[in-house]
Amino acid sequence: MTVKQLAANAKAAAIKLAAKKEADKNKALAAIAKTLQENSDAIISANQKDLEKAELDNLDKPLLKRLKFDQSKIDTVCSGIESLIKLEEPVGKTLCATELDNGLELYKVSCPLGVVGVIFESRPDALVQISTLCLKSGNSALLKGGSEAMNTNRILAKLISEASIEVGIPDGWINLLETRDDVSAMLDLDEYIDLIVPRGSNEFVQYIMKNTNIAVMGHADGICHVYIDDQADLGMALDIAVDSKCQYPAVCNAAETLLINRAIAPDFLPALKAALETQNCELRGDSGVLEIINAKAASEKDWATEYLDYIVSVKLVDSMQEAIDHINKYGSGHTDAIVTANKDRARDFMTLVDSGDVFWNASTRFSDGFRYGLGAEVGISTNKIHARGPVGLEGLLIYKWKLIGNGHIVSDYSSGKKAFTHEKLKKDCTI
Amino acid sequence: MTVKQLAANAKAAAIKLAAKKEADKNKALAAIAKTLQENSDAIISANQKDLEKAELDNLDKPLLKRLKFDQSKIDTVCSGIESLIKLEEPVGKTLCATELDNGLELYKVSCPLGVVGVIFESRPDALVQISTLCLKSGNSALLKGGSEAMNTNRILAKLISEASIEVGIPDGWINLLETRDDVSAMLDLDEYIDLIVPRGSNEFVQYIMKNTNIAVMGHADGICHVYIDDQADLGMALDIAVDSKCQYPAVCNAAETLLINRAIAPDFLPALKAALETQNCELRGDSGVLEIINAKAASEKDWATEYLDYIVSVKLVDSMQEAIDHINKYGSGHTDAIVTANKDRARDFMTLVDSGDVFWNASTRFSDGFRYGLGAEVGISTNKIHARGPVGLEGLLIYKWKLIGNGHIVSDYSSGKKAFTHEKLKKDCTI
Repeated sequence: MTVKQLAANAKAAAIKLAAKKEADKNKALAAIAKTLQENSDAIISANQKDLEKAELDNLDKPLLKRLKFDQSKIDTVCSGIESLIKLEEPVGKTLCATELDNGLELYKVSCPLGVVGVIFESRPDALVQISTLCLKSGNSALLKGGSEAMNTNRILAKLISEASIEVGIPDGWINLLETRDDVSAMLDLDEYIDLIVPRGSNEFVQYIMKNTNIAVMGHADGICHVYIDDQADLGMALDIAVDSKCQYPAVCNAAETLLINRAIAPDFLPALKAALETQNCELRGDSGVLEIINAKAASEKDWATEYLDYIVSVKLVDSMQEAIDHINKYGSGHTDAIVTANKDRARDFMTLVDSGDVFWNASTRFSDGFRYGLGAEVGISTNKIHARGPVGLEGLLIYKWKLIGNGHIVSDYSSGKKAFTHEKLKKDCTI
Repeated sequence: MTVKQLAANAKAAAIKLAAKKEADKNKALAAIAKTLQENSDAIISANQKDLEKAELDNLDKPLLKRLKFDQSKIDTVCSGIESLIKLEEPVGKTLCATELDNGLELYKVSCPLGVVGVIFESRPDALVQISTLCLKSGNSALLKGGSEAMNTNRILAKLISEASIEVGIPDGWINLLETRDDVSAMLDLDEYIDLIVPRGSNEFVQYIMKNTNIAVMGHADGICHVYIDDQADLGMALDIAVDSKCQYPAVCNAAETLLINRAIAPDFLPALKAALETQNCELRGDSGVLEIINAKAASEKDWATEYLDYIVSVKLVDSMQEAIDHINKYGSGHTDAIVTANKDRARDFMTLVDSGDVFWNASTRFSDGFRYGLGAEVGISTNKIHARGPVGLEGLLIYKWKLIGNGHIVSDYSSGKKAFTHEKLKKDCTI
């Protein structure tokens, strides 16, 4: 089948899937967990093929580790499915209810988007997580995983499709794409696809964003900052700076640049340098920094670089405003933190920094769907529309307006025979 | 200034505007209404120039009427501004609050999008409405009006800008674009512009959607349907059908196609024909219709046509499912209604029709921000993300996550020293 046909089928399936009840979707999720366990030998053996090919291709160790899908990974994804089953049903929630007039009631009710295209990295667990998130939220999925995981992804998609269809989920809701050409074809299918979620490298995400008219939810860069104010508790500032940079530097919510108020730099920088050295973290400073401590010099390029590594750039600023301006210029709108004891400054910083996540006296590393308690994370978005920051299931939902009347017509209102009441109602939509 | 420079300035202004308090924005709105009244002579005289040129250019009557901006139009937009002042402040609302751990609190707080580009029709009142909606919601605006209204738009934009800046709104928040080249330039500025709202013809909106990577909120077609079930009250069905088509056919929420259950067609069609004739509305029927009444034949093309006129296509269907399939195939995802006395059917119809607005026993013409009680309408969206159906101020808003800690770091949680509580909080963010 062509990608266009797959997408058309996915759209037809999505219409039916949107009408599925909570119990039906949870039954399918349970069936998926069951089939994954029952077929664990076949999954592990398919994964073995992928691993062998990857070793022959000399893939590097971290990639091999992410590619591996053993019994413990199967247990983990199945326990993720159990959690998903327990999550509150996201579809059919009444978000707002208004009486327009006697007997004419308007409800804003959550519903699935329709068809979601997800392009993800080499971890096969991502396929299970994403497809089950789509199912829980009533969406059809077009999935493109890493080509290294082809055999594993094939058996996973087949098992998930078969188990769910057997308990009544419409055929065509889950589809595996396998080639780059498939992805290119998908980018043109705005007639069928409602949202694309790309996960992967900066360049890849930017490529997707530039080459489709379909809405894209995701983030390219994660250039996060910590600003250390002259009214900061310096012990706290040190802990937050080190945690933000070093707790796990390979991820988008790790800090790349520390902005330090010049007034406290002489006290703070030597302690910072010592702390970073214990983490083997390289420090690149601007001229002000280099006057106080020995370090490598930072260039203009450093302020715009996502190291994703044990490297941090450090700049002195004369004021909080200078820090805010730097962040809004070089940042990626992801996560930025201020350390200060001054509440008014914290408020201004959090208002004026134009990022999805703005933190006061906390590490940037908290910017994450699980830490936020969202229950599940679809991705992190630096978009300004639809969903921003860590995105849970609500990123896969929209709403529709349901108007329930009893023969109401507009000419009665334009003629003045009737008038709108526009009373807020405190009740849920029952149809 | 180039459009790029205007957009960069608009972005800088948007950062400051996002921090403006409700009172400051309302003060500016009041100042705008005042200056429009005080300068009404100059506005009317600028409009006179536009009208004279339009007459020389032989613009048609309806366009001239829309272009006219007299004292009564000034009074209307000023009374719109008064209503806007009274609307609840949309920025800074706490949408969700969670305790992640003792002393670590997460708030999801509404905030402006940033910079909004709006391309609108020849009515100069649209400039006032859109710019004040942007101001109330804390957004900068790039505005491109109809070229016929150039003189009127120039003086309006100048007065609005001056009056608002004088009371402290940041310079650069409102910008007038004047040429098609300006619009083309705007479409490339995804670095600065967060949302484009195009209003105008189907072809124009589709052109915008296809030619930018910026998010676009709007609708191209409005192909709305009324399905008349075999369990409908036929008197009610007739009223709703006629109102949906004829109450004001030139708009997107007017019905274009009636789908009639074959079982009731012999009873319903003659009455429908008679009622439409009193409205001088042409009826185009499929073969089943023509077997029962005399009418023009509908072709395949009719099902996909937005007449925006006193013409309606009518098709017989064997079942509600056939009606749903027709709507999902030919409709534009705008507004579709069912007339039936059967609640279960109404529920299924409203779930399975993939449109932003689904109505039971009510005219499609209710699909409108003012009738919905939204307070103000930014536009109608057939998007599946961000905002759908009639969109009020909330379409110009997004949210940011504010995390307030006391030195919290992630390594304490990954080491197991601390654990997340994830308790929902019932309080508003105070910073």
